[in-house]
Amino acid sequence: MINEIRIFSPGTVSNVACGFDVLGFALESIGDEMIVRKTVQKGLTINNVSGFDLPMDIKKNVATVSAAELIEKLKPDCGFEIEFIKKIKPGSGIGSSGASAAGSVYAINKLMGDPFTMGDLIKFAMKDMQEDGMFEHPDNIAPALMGGFVLVKSISPLEIIKIPSPNDLYCTIVHPKIEVKTSYSRSILPNDVSLEDATKQLANFGSLIHGLHTSDYDLIKSSLNDHLIEKHRSKLIPKFQEIKSECLSNGALGCSISGSGPSIFALSRGIDSAKHVEQSINRVYSGSGLEFSTYVSKINDRGVEII
Amino acid sequence: MINEIRIFSPGTVSNVACGFDVLGFALESIGDEMIVRKTVQKGLTINNVSGFDLPMDIKKNVATVSAAELIEKLKPDCGFEIEFIKKIKPGSGIGSSGASAAGSVYAINKLMGDPFTMGDLIKFAMKDMQEDGMFEHPDNIAPALMGGFVLVKSISPLEIIKIPSPNDLYCTIVHPKIEVKTSYSRSILPNDVSLEDATKQLANFGSLIHGLHTSDYDLIKSSLNDHLIEKHRSKLIPKFQEIKSECLSNGALGCSISGSGPSIFALSRGIDSAKHVEQSINRVYSGSGLEFSTYVSKINDRGVEII
Repeated sequence: MINEIRIFSPGTVSNVACGFDVLGFALESIGDEMIVRKTVQKGLTINNVSGFDLPMDIKKNVATVSAAELIEKLKPDCGFEIEFIKKIKPGSGIGSSGASAAGSVYAINKLMGDPFTMGDLIKFAMKDMQEDGMFEHPDNIAPALMGGFVLVKSISPLEIIKIPSPNDLYCTIVHPKIEVKTSYSRSILPNDVSLEDATKQLANFGSLIHGLHTSDYDLIKSSLNDHLIEKHRSKLIPKFQEIKSECLSNGALGCSISGSGPSIFALSRGIDSAKHVEQSINRVYSGSGLEFSTYVSKINDRGVEII
Repeated sequence: MINEIRIFSPGTVSNVACGFDVLGFALESIGDEMIVRKTVQKGLTINNVSGFDLPMDIKKNVATVSAAELIEKLKPDCGFEIEFIKKIKPGSGIGSSGASAAGSVYAINKLMGDPFTMGDLIKFAMKDMQEDGMFEHPDNIAPALMGGFVLVKSISPLEIIKIPSPNDLYCTIVHPKIEVKTSYSRSILPNDVSLEDATKQLANFGSLIHGLHTSDYDLIKSSLNDHLIEKHRSKLIPKFQEIKSECLSNGALGCSISGSGPSIFALSRGIDSAKHVEQSINRVYSGSGLEFSTYVSKINDRGVEII
């Protein structure tokens, strides 16, 4: 009988250039850790948060709001306390909330002997996302839980599809330390887009799915273009065009905004290429007075896991 | 040395519900035949047209306009005469022009010992499509030439991708004998669509590509929904909603407008299901006073071929 587990819940990149609100993938080298323990007393407790600040109030912390959904359904004879070793900065655009929500439901489900399916866990973890009044796609939660590339076909009914991806795909992330609220980043999007742009996006997105299936890096490269969102949101990110242009001219397959930003991601073939791209980003931001972090990560095909 | 060949050039369904302007597939049981002969005299001649009317003027017939492009490039020491056994009614919405254009360039290329690539042939065949002043996607030409499902990623540069598809996929077509001009059918489309609809279309289209790759019929079924075009064009087609609803309740995986209409297509798993769907269509149109034809066809994975 296991009474305590420690898990790693990955950061995630959603939208992935041409897949606005429908595609995301999980990262390997950046993610949160959480220690979850059974307690005699029922209910949920947050007993420690390190790394970055998170609400200690269980009604305001996405991990406990999600976990409360699971507990409501399962009615276990025990409670749970959660310790956060937070490594993803909230608001960075690489799925900080998604990692917290995915991690808590995954860990409690494991401690209770896996009573729930992946679909159940995604729904529990989505709970908090819906609570803030905005209809959020689980394009961070699903890849955090399942790993790899995940296509969110539909929310209601929930239809989630794992897309195979080539083994040698690496991601470079840069997080410029500015604040961009998801709600603001969404509010600047237009209600309408041109049919022509929508059609170009379709062509790119279908091609990306085919390219991931067939490990066709050339096709992945030519598909990683966004015609709907990037032109609006990129204005919120310092030197976005310069970063993107440097990434592409230094070998990246594609570069766009991670989720609603401000992080920028680039995909590359192979770790050397991804590191080379990281250096090119460093050159742009260094000396700009802007605080920033970079990461290079393999695509994480496993998702949240016990460590 | 072959001096004459007879070819079959398939009818095609473009748009395929969620793939507006970017996806098409080829049919097996409906298509044009053409006999193409080398002649001593240079240039092109149309020596017979049977079945349906086509222009005899080589400057107005899509087959000879396309062939003229090829000849301009190749400068062969002979000419060609073309006989059409036309089986696809022009204006039906199942790629009549595409079959003519694809057939002539395929046949002449064969007679000359295959000097050109598939990409070259698609470009020659697209010539006529561009001449009418409208920017046409080769979503009929490419599947007619290549067979199967074809994704038109980009026109310039030309990027065409063949998508694998399950073996047991059948198509039912109904062609209500009304005239809908492609130019009119395109003119009624809006310039803008909502971001929400564009996003739903992305989810469906990506899922369809995945479903075709993995032979996931349930996913193909749930992906065959159009949020951009059908609501506008379906008004031009008598009893469209009734036909669609009958097809779906009689087992079709999906049903939408073929190309710019007026033909309607349904996809089904297996020939029996496709024939059952055909009967349900017959019941709707019979006694309506409307003249119509129906076809049941396997997906044609080979494209235009010598017969």
